[in-house]
Amino acid sequence: MACRRCCESTSGALFEYDTSKLIHIRNQKIGFIYRLVQLVVIVYIIGYVIVLEKGYQETDTVLSSVTTKMKGVALVQEEGQETPNVWDVADYVVPPEQTDAVFVTTNALVTRNQTRGVCPEDYNVAAGRCTVDSDCPADTPVPNGNGWRTGTCDLTTETCLVYAWCPVENDSNSDTVPSLGNYPLNFTLLIKNNIQFEKFGFYKSNILNATNSTFLQNCTYDSHDPLRRFCPIFRLDTMLEEAKVDYNDIALKGGVMGIFIKWECNLDYSSSNCRPQYEFKRLDNANSSVAPGYSFRHAINYVVDGVMHRQLTKAYGIRFQILVSGEAGKFSVVPLFLNIGSGIALLGISTVLCDLLVLYVVKRRQYYRDNKYQMIEDEESLLGFVEIKASKKDED
Amino acid sequence: MACRRCCESTSGALFEYDTSKLIHIRNQKIGFIYRLVQLVVIVYIIGYVIVLEKGYQETDTVLSSVTTKMKGVALVQEEGQETPNVWDVADYVVPPEQTDAVFVTTNALVTRNQTRGVCPEDYNVAAGRCTVDSDCPADTPVPNGNGWRTGTCDLTTETCLVYAWCPVENDSNSDTVPSLGNYPLNFTLLIKNNIQFEKFGFYKSNILNATNSTFLQNCTYDSHDPLRRFCPIFRLDTMLEEAKVDYNDIALKGGVMGIFIKWECNLDYSSSNCRPQYEFKRLDNANSSVAPGYSFRHAINYVVDGVMHRQLTKAYGIRFQILVSGEAGKFSVVPLFLNIGSGIALLGISTVLCDLLVLYVVKRRQYYRDNKYQMIEDEESLLGFVEIKASKKDED
Amino acid sequence: MACRRCCESTSGALFEYDTSKLIHIRNQKIGFIYRLVQLVVIVYIIGYVIVLEKGYQETDTVLSSVTTKMKGVALVQEEGQETPNVWDVADYVVPPEQTDAVFVTTNALVTRNQTRGVCPEDYNVAAGRCTVDSDCPADTPVPNGNGWRTGTCDLTTETCLVYAWCPVENDSNSDTVPSLGNYPLNFTLLIKNNIQFEKFGFYKSNILNATNSTFLQNCTYDSHDPLRRFCPIFRLDTMLEEAKVDYNDIALKGGVMGIFIKWECNLDYSSSNCRPQYEFKRLDNANSSVAPGYSFRHAINYVVDGVMHRQLTKAYGIRFQILVSGEAGKFSVVPLFLNIGSGIALLGISTVLCDLLVLYVVKRRQYYRDNKYQMIEDEESLLGFVEIKASKKDED
Repeated sequence: MACRRCCESTSGALFEYDTSKLIHIRNQKIGFIYRLVQLVVIVYIIGYVIVLEKGYQETDTVLSSVTTKMKGVALVQEEGQETPNVWDVADYVVPPEQTDAVFVTTNALVTRNQTRGVCPEDYNVAAGRCTVDSDCPADTPVPNGNGWRTGTCDLTTETCLVYAWCPVENDSNSDTVPSLGNYPLNFTLLIKNNIQFEKFGFYKSNILNATNSTFLQNCTYDSHDPLRRFCPIFRLDTMLEEAKVDYNDIALKGGVMGIFIKWECNLDYSSSNCRPQYEFKRLDNANSSVAPGYSFRHAINYVVDGVMHRQLTKAYGIRFQILVSGEAGKFSVVPLFLNIGSGIALLGISTVLCDLLVLYVVKRRQYYRDNKYQMIEDEESLLGFVEIKASKKDED
Repeated sequence: MACRRCCESTSGALFEYDTSKLIHIRNQKIGFIYRLVQLVVIVYIIGYVIVLEKGYQETDTVLSSVTTKMKGVALVQEEGQETPNVWDVADYVVPPEQTDAVFVTTNALVTRNQTRGVCPEDYNVAAGRCTVDSDCPADTPVPNGNGWRTGTCDLTTETCLVYAWCPVENDSNSDTVPSLGNYPLNFTLLIKNNIQFEKFGFYKSNILNATNSTFLQNCTYDSHDPLRRFCPIFRLDTMLEEAKVDYNDIALKGGVMGIFIKWECNLDYSSSNCRPQYEFKRLDNANSSVAPGYSFRHAINYVVDGVMHRQLTKAYGIRFQILVSGEAGKFSVVPLFLNIGSGIALLGISTVLCDLLVLYVVKRRQYYRDNKYQMIEDEESLLGFVEIKASKKDED
Repeated sequence: MACRRCCESTSGALFEYDTSKLIHIRNQKIGFIYRLVQLVVIVYIIGYVIVLEKGYQETDTVLSSVTTKMKGVALVQEEGQETPNVWDVADYVVPPEQTDAVFVTTNALVTRNQTRGVCPEDYNVAAGRCTVDSDCPADTPVPNGNGWRTGTCDLTTETCLVYAWCPVENDSNSDTVPSLGNYPLNFTLLIKNNIQFEKFGFYKSNILNATNSTFLQNCTYDSHDPLRRFCPIFRLDTMLEEAKVDYNDIALKGGVMGIFIKWECNLDYSSSNCRPQYEFKRLDNANSSVAPGYSFRHAINYVVDGVMHRQLTKAYGIRFQILVSGEAGKFSVVPLFLNIGSGIALLGISTVLCDLLVLYVVKRRQYYRDNKYQMIEDEESLLGFVEIKASKKDED
């Protein structure tokens, strides 16, 4: 006997095959539960994890580069002027270029001809008001104000004299109409978005090759049109409409708009199916309790007679932030086998569950238990038990 | 009997051990398939998933911050001028600082001394041409033009009079040589890239500590040199060469270049092995049908005699976009065990496959089946079958 | 017999149930190891992978948009001037708006009244020094200098004459105090960060709704205060303190500060628990051997008498880079089942391990082996072995 076992181990056993001995239980209820759980697991793994969630694909996230080009001209009629002032791209896009964003001025508070000096603070700044000089401690800044107090109260304006760019900006917040009017609604934004999925060496642009060039040069985006929904030129009014944002709401105090470009690409199919999808959403909270809207100050500086002057602009406007997201999937054995492995393991749940039922719940559990388990005694207690065990088994 | 089982459950059974009873089948063909499938799975799990794909590592993606510094001076010889005009960093880098990008002007169309007013549209703008006043409906913008029509046709230029910055830019597109010539090829770009892998508390800069400082101050990047390929100073011509981009192609109409910095770090080894790798690639499509190249307009505004003037520059140039990607891995039990678990489960495939063969394909399948399954009858049908079952077994 | 098997396959067998026949081994040592390994695996899967690492959650990473608003005014006392010069936001924030970053000038080297022309190079530029004309080869740039050599050496300054913006910047690097003094320490930065977890349709702002508005308008961030640690207004000195950066270290030569906003959101709970956490860290290496600090040049251009002039500023300062990271988790069956599957598979380790012990290590291994394996002979060798096998089994 020892000899045979020995031979097996060294030569033959390598190519022999072990499979579990199974207890086949003829119990329709348990059997039904068993098959049901198996079915659920298989449907879940194959149907959901592998087919629906594309568990057979390796994925990569997008690397993106964005450039933008605004077009459009606005006219601003200023008081006391005969001809309207023109505002073109170089005026209302500040700074002229940004990463993944573009800012369009819609409302501008312009303060002209400032020079550095001493002048009374803006009356709208609460902390700058005074009645006597002691209200204006020297060498202290005016909180949320335009400068540092000189120590003197200007009795005419009832505000402290401050070291500042003079005259200070009059931020009375009384505007009811954005200074660029409705002109920005006609502006267009061309977005050039080049993406790549590095893992797959896949490159693409949102300016699709398939469509003809004259179409693209003159088209504007329309989400409802089968062709124009891939047009990379967006009218401002279209974008606001899609985001359900009222122009007057956002133009007066400014705001941040998100332009979402989504690339969901199944690279198992033709690359021409990998096309961007555009979505628009206002990102900031229009009703925020703190500094609602979006604005910043920028200046045009120039020298007259050796003295630095500037024209300060508080620019309210729409910051378009372009957020590119995307995922590409391509067949790969690693995730497929990981999911299959996990599926086979999950199949074990059916056995675990039914074993619990069979061994601990059903009436004849003792009978099943005796059949499922073959008792093997420990060395120490062996001598006494072997016969008992063997006989016990036969008794069943 | 009930007593003994009871005793087992309460005390001994906890530290007893269950292992499947196996049917050991001496069939070399099946055995060979069995071992082969097992081998494939083990090699796949250990060799590919764990060793090659580093399945024993937890990974983290990079968080990055980039600053850049251009250096270099160009000379532009303008008509009618004796000495050439110098263009330095403050002239050709617009805006002076950006997030993850830097723009270098290579070709500039400068329009001097503009003021807001009324003047004829550029003849190159097709929509601005006219022969009679009715071609110029008042209060309409010139599509892709510079302003809004006043309603009058200027018969000398045969274009509409527009409210615009006057004189309007003459965008005749006739340049054949970039206005900064070949000077930009000698410019250098210093990139400082600080990265971190948050999960591992790992920080690093692309300016490596190991190399000595005098080397770094004067080096320039060279992908073929073992030392200089870690130099953070890049000549523009080197970058274009590496990306296989012809300077004249990109300089005249502009373009977007990607500078890819890749950090692939195995933090199980010394951190000095975690070094950046640089790659260069043109990101935009040079032959795009829509607005090929890259340009934008920016202006220098100044006041003369109380009137706002500006010098408009249409800047064509190269936008260098720095795209940092990276992944660090470090040993962790979670992914290791996940992969081992999945591997053990996959081993089950070999049994499933061979069971199919043994039970349904091979000639003696009935014999194997009878041995693999031990029939246990259901309660109802039990009385009649127990004996049959027991005897059937002995027959084999 | 053939009939019965047949019936089973077609009707009954579908709802019958197979479970492994187990060998129950009464060996306390093996049993103890068996249960221990099982316990470790279960504790690991449930305790660590599922509960601690939230293995029952699907995760999504954050999409973020950031806008910033600096406030504060500095005074700069210049030589020979009676009143101090004010620097406000439009002066020290350059460019006025950036993506995910804001730059605050702390030290400025201003060169006034430059025009394009010919003048001697800065003596601090080593490559620009000369004693004779031949030291200044014409039509060559001065490395790291301000212009191109004309071919003439200026004997008064002992530097080459260059085509440049004249007079050239005098970069003597001798400053010991940042030109904006300590004023920037009082500046405040309002950060508005709007995030979203797209997969879950979840949107949130770092300006929390719950807290009352008057509080938020006047608060400043304090990491130790339970309320103020959610305040979105940050004093510069607080940020530097938190990052353990000395102001004078960073203000003189500039630097890059990271403002980390972390969103770790468990969306299984109330969304009001999803709140940002702020961290501050200096990103660049203050002691870098190459171009330590952070600075760039920008210019104010203006025309006097038809000639372009400019005021060049080399701005040293702090670039605040806002890095938003975050992950949200929400219950999902896919990862839960993946982890459970992997756990069940890992439980197999206990059996594999104990089988190795039982079959190859313990003294009575032959006895266990004989019990575990039921030998089934191959077709060819079958005739001779069946009886032996059957009888061998009975012998046990």
